[in-house]
Amino acid sequence: MSGFQTVKGFRDFFPRDCALRNCIFQNWRDVASRHGFVEYEGPTLESTELLRKKSGDEITQQLFCFTTKGGEDVSMRPEVTPTLARMAATRQRDFPKPLKWFQIGPCYRYERQQRGRLREFYQFNVDILGEASPAADAELVALAVESLRAFGLEPGDFIVRLSDRRLWTEFQNARQLSEEQSAEFLQIIDKMERAPAEVTNAKLQALGMTLEEVQAFIGSIDADHPIFAALRENLEARGLWQYVKIDPGIVRGLAYYTGTVFEVFDIKHGLRAIAGGGRYDNLVGHLSDGAVKMPACGFAMGDVVLAELIKQTPAAQERMERAMDQSMASDVYVIVAEESQRNEALKVITTLRQAGWRVDCSLTPLKVGKQFQAAETAKARFAVVIGAEFPMVTIKNLGTRDQMETTADALAQMLAELKAAPEYNPLLA
Amino acid sequence: MSGFQTVKGFRDFFPRDCALRNCIFQNWRDVASRHGFVEYEGPTLESTELLRKKSGDEITQQLFCFTTKGGEDVSMRPEVTPTLARMAATRQRDFPKPLKWFQIGPCYRYERQQRGRLREFYQFNVDILGEASPAADAELVALAVESLRAFGLEPGDFIVRLSDRRLWTEFQNARQLSEEQSAEFLQIIDKMERAPAEVTNAKLQALGMTLEEVQAFIGSIDADHPIFAALRENLEARGLWQYVKIDPGIVRGLAYYTGTVFEVFDIKHGLRAIAGGGRYDNLVGHLSDGAVKMPACGFAMGDVVLAELIKQTPAAQERMERAMDQSMASDVYVIVAEESQRNEALKVITTLRQAGWRVDCSLTPLKVGKQFQAAETAKARFAVVIGAEFPMVTIKNLGTRDQMETTADALAQMLAELKAAPEYNPLLA
Repeated sequence: MSGFQTVKGFRDFFPRDCALRNCIFQNWRDVASRHGFVEYEGPTLESTELLRKKSGDEITQQLFCFTTKGGEDVSMRPEVTPTLARMAATRQRDFPKPLKWFQIGPCYRYERQQRGRLREFYQFNVDILGEASPAADAELVALAVESLRAFGLEPGDFIVRLSDRRLWTEFQNARQLSEEQSAEFLQIIDKMERAPAEVTNAKLQALGMTLEEVQAFIGSIDADHPIFAALRENLEARGLWQYVKIDPGIVRGLAYYTGTVFEVFDIKHGLRAIAGGGRYDNLVGHLSDGAVKMPACGFAMGDVVLAELIKQTPAAQERMERAMDQSMASDVYVIVAEESQRNEALKVITTLRQAGWRVDCSLTPLKVGKQFQAAETAKARFAVVIGAEFPMVTIKNLGTRDQMETTADALAQMLAELKAAPEYNPLLA
Repeated sequence: MSGFQTVKGFRDFFPRDCALRNCIFQNWRDVASRHGFVEYEGPTLESTELLRKKSGDEITQQLFCFTTKGGEDVSMRPEVTPTLARMAATRQRDFPKPLKWFQIGPCYRYERQQRGRLREFYQFNVDILGEASPAADAELVALAVESLRAFGLEPGDFIVRLSDRRLWTEFQNARQLSEEQSAEFLQIIDKMERAPAEVTNAKLQALGMTLEEVQAFIGSIDADHPIFAALRENLEARGLWQYVKIDPGIVRGLAYYTGTVFEVFDIKHGLRAIAGGGRYDNLVGHLSDGAVKMPACGFAMGDVVLAELIKQTPAAQERMERAMDQSMASDVYVIVAEESQRNEALKVITTLRQAGWRVDCSLTPLKVGKQFQAAETAKARFAVVIGAEFPMVTIKNLGTRDQMETTADALAQMLAELKAAPEYNPLLA
């Protein structure tokens, strides 16, 4: 066994792990496309200065940051929003507004090692830039919901906890908090759910208020609050309001949110947030030193918690396993029953592959029984047996065990007909 | 305009760039699947020690290497083979042999800045582990060829230059070179094509031979040489030998190749190699300190030269543009002709999206003419107009300009029928 291991917090994706990852990506990509979003990608390395300008100095503690041989201060990206803002500021004139953009790729955070926390993970980032209307916020919440529905997750499996930063702006203004106090206050609210009540109360008192007061305010906000009216009407029209719960306790830790904020949680397993986002109307302007002003909203969904939730939800897991099997399976396994016909077999294999079939075959001579075993392992739907009677060949449906003879020339056509028949694969029937 | 720029040698993928990248990935993935390969992925960060053990100390000059906050010496991977060897050594017992594995992902090299050289690029890595037969080498050469054919590249566009390290082993043994001299010798042969003859000759003379002697040896090897017999018979059976040219001048710079080596070049444009690979039977054993011995062969293809070749080959470029258009287009653009029907429109949109259609719509009220313009920009195939007559809606085929009326309930079914009709999209006809 080799002594080399993965770097801490980084993952190897062996084929089945990779199939799971790819199925998640494919669902994300499909759902985003169905909602009229187009994909972009940025570099995985950015200047540390960009990240610091977005998130403050403390962020560097969580960065894989270093100096290149050329003296550039760079970091492996911890998130994609700074990259998006940079790209949008640079080229926004070239695109009709609003930009409806999504991205799928790795992010890196040097976090304390703990269960379920990785240092390299994938994110699905979805943003709308250049549109201030709540219709954009609604489109994003709808997309977040549909992303999870696409995995077979249902109303009882997850909930979108929705709030609006402006609720707290009012609350704070009434109490005349300074900018620093305000940032501190939002941190307290963000952590309130997991912190002991006494701790929260003490912190709030230092800012001149009480936990009771805050809780009373939270209790006074419900789905009828006018700040949610447009979003609610929109999501009701889509039939998706049932996935949403108003929860003013959601504020998102980050300083730059300006309006709607939301987080998506599973209902049954108490996992960490599956996704989170909101409106950040000032960020593009801030990162471009005011050169490009652009309202914006977006959300990010990570692969780790999502994969965990799928695993714990039988219907979703079953659907995922089927998709993984399908993505890894061969269509046809060619069995060379008579070694003298190998060159003929190679010709048949090449023809089928060029016609789009996924075809596997033992590279070297093997007993016929072993080849059939290999066909089962490759989860092939059909075996094609090439023997001494070539150009006559036998097709065997490995699901139904039916078999039939045909000629090499008619093979591709015959396979297409068999594949189209509903009984060939009970999963599709 | 923001002052922030990409890190040198790193790329932004705006939506059309990203569509190109994704179409390349999709082709790679499809071709590999058709050949019975399954996908894996490793971490983008590896221990620097692993890379050094594979490639020697000089490699560190080309690495994005650094020390993490936890004191680990790590590097952004410059290639994937060390990761593959590490993974295979760790878990090979869990998989039937041979492993037919492929990978698609970013690699990083801190290279001198020059045209066409990037510091972050994508690679397609394809390897067969656990099979010593030339049938494995042939499967890889075939896959390399089919990968390029999948882009619409033809026999006149590219050539596989094929050689075998063992030819040179014989040549060197006859001259009794030391291990160091042998490595130096292979470097000279590798660079010979681009170096002035006098320089090559001088270097060869220092090793006790002449350029003339080497050229005579190269000239003596042709496609009838027995070392290529098995590979040739196999590729002839597949009809792919026409893409191959025997060229003993190909040795690949890296020390670890043990048999077949090949590089793929374009024919008309003099670009750098599109792909390269070969047999490396001792590497897994070397990296696992002898714990796991496994014959292996593989190749890597980069995205940068490939994209350049596609761009310079009209037939391939046309095919690519079409695939990119298709991947970015909406199927349906919903036009809200009567704003009071927006909630009904949202319901229709949601139903279509849930049925798998890619549907876009203006988020906010817009004149009908502007909405039709937006539909054209989104390259939508159909516009669906929702107006005062709802639930009657109008479908307009934006290709043929035909239009028809239907009800909201029958819409999805009607669109499916229209899409299936050959005249709906002349590109498909």
